[in-house]
Parts: sequence; structure tokens; C-alpha cells
Amino acid sequence: MSSSSIDKVVHQVFTEKALHDFYCVGDTCKGWERNVVDQPEAVKKIIDNGAARIAAGPGVGGELENLGLARMIDHTLLKPEATPADVEKLCREAKENIFASVCVNPSYVQFCSDLLRGTKVKVCTVIGFPLGATTTETKRAEAEQALKNGAEELDMVINIGMLKQGEYDYVFNDINQIVLAAKRNRAICKVIIETALLTDEEKIKACLIAKNAKADFVKTSTGFSTGGATAGDIALMRYVVGSSVGVKASGGIRSLEDAAKMIESGADRIGASASVKIVEGETVTGGY
Amino acid sequence: MSSSSIDKVVHQVFTEKALHDFYCVGDTCKGWERNVVDQPEAVKKIIDNGAARIAAGPGVGGELENLGLARMIDHTLLKPEATPADVEKLCREAKENIFASVCVNPSYVQFCSDLLRGTKVKVCTVIGFPLGATTTETKRAEAEQALKNGAEELDMVINIGMLKQGEYDYVFNDINQIVLAAKRNRAICKVIIETALLTDEEKIKACLIAKNAKADFVKTSTGFSTGGATAGDIALMRYVVGSSVGVKASGGIRSLEDAAKMIESGADRIGASASVKIVEGETVTGGY
Repeated sequence: MSSSSIDKVVHQVFTEKALHDFYCVGDTCKGWERNVVDQPEAVKKIIDNGAARIAAGPGVGGELENLGLARMIDHTLLKPEATPADVEKLCREAKENIFASVCVNPSYVQFCSDLLRGTKVKVCTVIGFPLGATTTETKRAEAEQALKNGAEELDMVINIGMLKQGEYDYVFNDINQIVLAAKRNRAICKVIIETALLTDEEKIKACLIAKNAKADFVKTSTGFSTGGATAGDIALMRYVVGSSVGVKASGGIRSLEDAAKMIESGADRIGASASVKIVEGETVTGGY
Repeated sequence: MSSSSIDKVVHQVFTEKALHDFYCVGDTCKGWERNVVDQPEAVKKIIDNGAARIAAGPGVGGELENLGLARMIDHTLLKPEATPADVEKLCREAKENIFASVCVNPSYVQFCSDLLRGTKVKVCTVIGFPLGATTTETKRAEAEQALKNGAEELDMVINIGMLKQGEYDYVFNDINQIVLAAKRNRAICKVIIETALLTDEEKIKACLIAKNAKADFVKTSTGFSTGGATAGDIALMRYVVGSSVGVKASGGIRSLEDAAKMIESGADRIGASASVKIVEGETVTGGY
């Protein structure tokens, strides 16, 4: 995808009516940065205007609906100080709640793979995480090793500095190498664009490049930067990638209400460490 | 180094008089967590009691002394959003000030190596950064690639969760693999223990294991965790590793005064992004 064709699509996206309406709520046009809490109307508007929506929304307490939500959650523990004992607890909770996956650092992939063998819970890991600034070769080696150790989902971080410099070929290849490694092993690849560090234009470009590189999902955040998922970003990402690519909301999702808002805005996967409390409908304070 | 012999040394270190004195200032024994600002006397005491000190302290404005300080600084830019243009500026500043190295993410090693060829400024990069939770195999592959691309210094992060679980053999091997890769290429290896996430006992254990694994330096912080270098931690690390291993203070060092305190406490290398302002004696606020 050439630089000029990316610019063309960005321009097109910016001038689409639904996006324009979303940007301009009431008298002012503020951009996507606003938090869902401040903009329920705006989120509703983008959805009404035709942004793709997905799968089952969260239940209102019933067991079956909650199971639907649980299957959209990557139960996540990426803190560097997490011990094998902590990771074991994560796997136990994931089995009990039938979460989509556990999302752990690469050094725990083999351990989780052993613990989760024969269950429906997959092992998801992170590549080039959380800065995205390792070389493409290292990301590929890391991905291949994770796949060998039993990972079925890879959440890779783009090279943010290269995106900002306009090095789109670099960013494309960096993503595509991991996508290809994943596909060779029948695994999926999610692409973390780290929305908190990007302008709206850069978010659109990152999503376009990820889609073009055949990523299975785009994902908002690492949870280690200056901010997490917002409903506005989810709606933007869903709008840009259409219905053929998944959207994962991650970073700062602490309650059933947070998760519901993300899903309403177009997310079909949620990354959270507070997953058990989310499916139980409790509100969690603090931390990612 | 067996678990029981590590425990023995930790016990020994804790009962050393100098450490005891350091812990117990006035009426209460508080541990190392206190900031240098709150404990100048304690820092002086540990130094007076025989902790190793190093090299030239920072100058009082003279050009030669400042040159001495500059040669102790790794001029650092590890933000994920740093562009090639930002990294080029970093290299220019490092050449002008003759800093020990530029410390950049792995995707910029080749670029910096080309820019700094024929100068005294080395290229330093980070391995398994900043979480330390990639596999040993990935860290080794990342290190080998960085060395091939021109890195002469590798700052690797230990596996913090494994240290906390008492998996000392794992932590030793994880460090040692990178040390061996570095030595084969006549490069040096610094070991980041991420003091902010460790208890005092864990800090001592991490330093002992790093020393035993033949690391060239122990280093306090990634700059991406909950805290950076404190003079207390530097004094503790210097005390534990003795004079044969270097100590690098990093994270939150923003002024000449900060740098001076770290050096007084036993640091012989400083990691900072505010390096130019440090050698010029200015105070910088905010950011790592």
C-alpha cells in the first residue's frame, strides 16, 4: 500500500458522514480522544450511522449471556512481577469462566500451554511488547518460539516511531512477518496500535496497514502507555477496518459497564485483568 | 549458586554493620526505600562505612570535570514513539558531548551504529525490555542480532517474576546467556534489576546472581516502572557487588544534582534522557 493511497483513504475516512457526525457532537468537533463517559450520544450516533457491530452483547445477569461475554475476554496478566503462581491462578480462573484465552508474557507460554491442554481456553501472548521497538527479525523469532511453545494467539505491537515517520513499508512488513508466522501455525495475530500515542490520522493509517497486512484483529492498547481503550477509538477502528477484521479493546477496562460500552462501540474482544469481576458484574477500581 | 548459599549471603549482607547503620538512622530502621532527598546522612554513612566509590565525581563547572561526567552517561531515548529523526538528534548530541553511549531500542541499533561510526560514542541497546518477561531464547536471539547490528553495550532486564518465585537457576541462566553473547562480541552486558518492583532482599539476590553470571554492570531501572533510581538503592547495589562490577543509576535522573548524588552513592554510569541539560547543569522537570 503506497503512501499516497494511504493518504487518500485517510482523507476519505475523515470526510465520511458518519465520522463527521461522530466528531461533531453539539456545537464543537473534538476528535476521537473523548472518553465514552463523556460521549454516550456520540457513541450511539456512530453505531446508528452504520459502524459494524458484533456478536452477543454482555448479558444482563443471565448465565448464558455471561458465557457469551466470557468468550470475548482475553484474561490478561502481563505485569513483569507476575510469578508462576500468579499465572497458575490466572489459568484456573480462565478455565472456570471459559474465557477466550489467557494473555501472558512469552516466558509463560509453555507453562500455560501445559496447564490448559484439553480445555477451550487458548494461550495468547505478546510480541515486541510493550514498546514495539524491537527489530522485525526479533519479533519474528519471538513469534516463532511462542507458537512452538503452544501460543495460538499473538498480540504484536507495531513500530510506533516508524509509523510516525511515515515509514509505512517498514510498518507493513513488521506486521506481515508476524501474521505469516501465525498463519503457518493456524494461530491468529492481533495488532496493537497503541492509540494513546497516536493522532487520529495515525490511528486510521495503522488500522489500514494492519488490515492490508492480513491481521486478524486490531487492538487499542498495551496497558503500559499513557492511556487505554476509549469507545471513540473502538468506533473509529471498527469503522476503518470494516467487519472482516476483529477489534480488541484493552487497557483500563475494569467493569462490566466498561466492557459493555466497548462492545457497543464495535469491539469483539476485550483484554482485561479484571475479567472475573467483569463477568460477575462487579466494578474494580485502580490498575490496568 | 544454590538457593541456600544465596540465602546465606543475603543474611550476611543484612547483618553487616554498615548496612545495619544505613538501615537504622536515628531511632527507626526503615530499609532502603527512602529517597536520597530524605536521607543525605544515611547515604554519607554508608559511604563512610566503606562502600566502594568510583571514578571522578561531577565537576563544579570546569570543562574537564564535565567531560568526566559526560563519559559516565548513557544518553537515552527509549520512548516507543521516538522517530528516526529523534534518534538522529540523540546521536548528534551524544557526539557533541562525547557521552559514553546512546541507549536506544533495538530497531534503531543499525541506524545509530552507522551514524556513530568513527566516534567515541558507543551504541547501547536494551534486551527483553522493559518487562524482562520474554523467553531466554528470545533474549539471546535479540542480543545476537543487536551485536551483529553494531551494539557494544546490552542492557538486559531480568525475569522479575521468576526471581520472586525463587527460581534462581532460571534467573542466572537468563542473564548468563546474554553475558556470554556479549563477551563473544567484546561487548558488555548490564543487568537491569528494576528496583522499584523488588524488596530489599530481592535486590540483594538479583545483584548476587548478576555478579555470579559475570555481568559487567547492575542497573537500577528501566524507566518504565513505578519508580527510578534512589541513592539508597545505588549504595546497596554497590555494597553487594563490590568494586569489580559497575553500577548504573537510571530512571528519573533529571539534573546535575541528581547525577551527583547517584555518583556519590556508588554509581559509575548514569542513564538519562536529560543528559545534555545534566552536563550543562540545568534542572529538568517531568518525564524520565
